[in-house]
Amino acid sequence: MAIRDQLAALHITLPEVAPPAAAFVPFVRTGALVFLSGHIARRDGKPWTGRLGDDLTTADGQAAARAVAVDLLATLQLAAGGDLERVARIVKLLVLVSSAPSFTEQHLVANGASQLFVDVFGERGAHARSAFGAAQLPLGACVEIELVAELA
Amino acid sequence: MAIRDQLAALHITLPEVAPPAAAFVPFVRTGALVFLSGHIARRDGKPWTGRLGDDLTTADGQAAARAVAVDLLATLQLAAGGDLERVARIVKLLVLVSSAPSFTEQHLVANGASQLFVDVFGERGAHARSAFGAAQLPLGACVEIELVAELA
Amino acid sequence: MAIRDQLAALHITLPEVAPPAAAFVPFVRTGALVFLSGHIARRDGKPWTGRLGDDLTTADGQAAARAVAVDLLATLQLAAGGDLERVARIVKLLVLVSSAPSFTEQHLVANGASQLFVDVFGERGAHARSAFGAAQLPLGACVEIELVAELA
Repeated sequence: MAIRDQLAALHITLPEVAPPAAAFVPFVRTGALVFLSGHIARRDGKPWTGRLGDDLTTADGQAAARAVAVDLLATLQLAAGGDLERVARIVKLLVLVSSAPSFTEQHLVANGASQLFVDVFGERGAHARSAFGAAQLPLGACVEIELVAELA
Repeated sequence: MAIRDQLAALHITLPEVAPPAAAFVPFVRTGALVFLSGHIARRDGKPWTGRLGDDLTTADGQAAARAVAVDLLATLQLAAGGDLERVARIVKLLVLVSSAPSFTEQHLVANGASQLFVDVFGERGAHARSAFGAAQLPLGACVEIELVAELA
Repeated sequence: MAIRDQLAALHITLPEVAPPAAAFVPFVRTGALVFLSGHIARRDGKPWTGRLGDDLTTADGQAAARAVAVDLLATLQLAAGGDLERVARIVKLLVLVSSAPSFTEQHLVANGASQLFVDVFGERGAHARSAFGAAQLPLGACVEIELVAELA
């Protein structure tokens, strides 16, 4: 299925990409690779705050990670000149989870994002990944993800 | 010395690579680069748990980091089509160390992995590296390492 | 303006690059990309210690991040054969900020480094970036930054 149709089937509408309010950019392309800046989880346009193992559950974290993945898709679409079909491969995710010292399910939280990339891209969406617990994230966000992809 | 012989001299037997139980893969190749997923420390097949500066010493951490490096070698061998001689360069390690707030020897822990790559690959094993303290790691592991390498 | 003149206008003198005292190297080049090791903040030649939200303010962290960026520039110059004009693009920064659990301004700390790259390189300095809170950093440093750049 075309990625456009896949997104529609998943009832996903990609948001507008807001440029960062600082001296960095949402993505940089170099050769066939594109490096996306860390995107923090947002809900209703505001940072999705909280800490796993504290005031948020693993299921909350998975929903937040999926929301980040949707925002990453929007940035990736921009990086690919408006056409996600030009994404040859999702290469790697770095998944940062704001974690209480007792929380050890960062990998399950990360699955919320990983699953979406596979749902949208199929085999091209299968990626390498690291997930870990951060002491804290910008603006108190619960999840932040950066991504490397290969463009055709 | 051939890498196969170097491994034998170090009494290292590479393990089977178990596929992750989720929507991601142990490695992705893109051009000459291969990105390996974060591998957590394991002992006797189970996560090597604990926190540096808490219930584990720097020497424990170094042993755990070396164990991760062995697992990364096994994945790298798979990525290189079964032949580690095709590894042109170990490019970069990201070494995450589960750390109590008072523990500041993440770089010494990381040396447990770095030294192994140099022992096995010689000059091709000299890599760029970052090491830092994570609030917590998946499954309570004490060390997690991701790796980028260049294949010939 | 030439980068050499830009550095002079900013009153920046690049330091000597000290080789790491371990089995890793300050940078690795692979194809057009160069990966720089994580550099920790230093002041007067010693680790710039402390934790944001604890004994250091956001302004302190920004100054420390800028100091790291200067050290990264010195390593980048070495990687570029002594000539920073050969840097085609600053691709990505990973900015680790030693953070108390309550500190949520890692992105503002990171701006201390990001701004310098834009000041020095102009459009070529605009980069992708992730910033997050680490539980602790090597030698108790307050900030650590790793960098990927593209060389011409």
